[in-house]
Amino acid sequence: MMQLFHAWGSCSLASLIALEEADAACDLVIMDTKAGDQRRPEYLAINPKGRVPALVTDRGVLTETPAILAFIAQSFPEARLAPLDDPFAFAEAQAFNSYICATAHPAHAHRHRGYRWADQESSFEDMRRRVPGNMRECFGLIEEGLSKGPWVLGEAYSICDPYLFTLSDWMEEDGVDPAEFPRVHAHRERVRARPAVRKVFAQKAS
Amino acid sequence: MMQLFHAWGSCSLASLIALEEADAACDLVIMDTKAGDQRRPEYLAINPKGRVPALVTDRGVLTETPAILAFIAQSFPEARLAPLDDPFAFAEAQAFNSYICATAHPAHAHRHRGYRWADQESSFEDMRRRVPGNMRECFGLIEEGLSKGPWVLGEAYSICDPYLFTLSDWMEEDGVDPAEFPRVHAHRERVRARPAVRKVFAQKAS
Repeated sequence: MMQLFHAWGSCSLASLIALEEADAACDLVIMDTKAGDQRRPEYLAINPKGRVPALVTDRGVLTETPAILAFIAQSFPEARLAPLDDPFAFAEAQAFNSYICATAHPAHAHRHRGYRWADQESSFEDMRRRVPGNMRECFGLIEEGLSKGPWVLGEAYSICDPYLFTLSDWMEEDGVDPAEFPRVHAHRERVRARPAVRKVFAQKAS
Repeated sequence: MMQLFHAWGSCSLASLIALEEADAACDLVIMDTKAGDQRRPEYLAINPKGRVPALVTDRGVLTETPAILAFIAQSFPEARLAPLDDPFAFAEAQAFNSYICATAHPAHAHRHRGYRWADQESSFEDMRRRVPGNMRECFGLIEEGLSKGPWVLGEAYSICDPYLFTLSDWMEEDGVDPAEFPRVHAHRERVRARPAVRKVFAQKAS
């Protein structure tokens, strides 16, 4: 049985939702990143990067959200979570997820994790001030076309949707008004209403 | 014929090398990012993100290095640039490329592009001071196992190798001594010696 190392409030939510959409058998290991679980030696032995998510499979450990999402899509093709037989369409999905992991997520991370890239409190404050503007720029590009609607790739729900949902669900705390991005906001509520996503949040509540 | 929008000194080098390894017919469009080519309206019409690379195909435009690299591997399977028939091995390749695009490349970008995440000169200086340490951390993880050797994925050269090469070729300017990372350094010189890479650098010189 696979194991997903997950922290509520982190980007590992995207992988958890995708596993649920695929109806994949997977044990959930809840990490408390505020308590530093991701830096404990026993976790570093699993993922030396000290981050979530990590997906333990019978072949070994996978890390990095875009890689895990594509792995779920390829391992459970009957769930139709990515255009697996069309390299161009698959690349469009990957491009979207790369944008989230390499641009949108780092832009968000500068709000609370400025210590990754600087040392001074004045720098952290400076970075925090830029977060709403930077996130607005990301959501603007998504609103204007990176997401095709109703789902990111168009008519078919895919591994891009829970990843966008994860980031867009942080909008308000990142200082962005969802009303500015009606298409992204409608997408977010569309994802939230899916049975798999309700099931995931029910686990959180329990 | 495909078109690659490329800037020397940028991460689009990885895509250019992969295209050359695949012997893919592709026109090269050289961008001068210091002159702001990537912000001109005619380029923003191609890639609204205002970044390189962008790969124009007969199906549309692809962006983001990991997506373009996987697209090249899938479109030219005879070049054997990724383990295409093994979802777990393919995910390992993707995890490596995600780590480069989401962690190593942003860590590097804080040296010259602090303006993306802050406004004050004091913050930029603070960020610049952290770059050697952050890059050392990235290369340390790669040295200790993210790259298996002799190539990133082990015995087979793949789309991960030109991407690591692109970052590791910036080591010295990022304030990292290659002698600290002998395996990463040896990998870099191994990639540099490949015929496809020599051919790419010959285009730069011409």
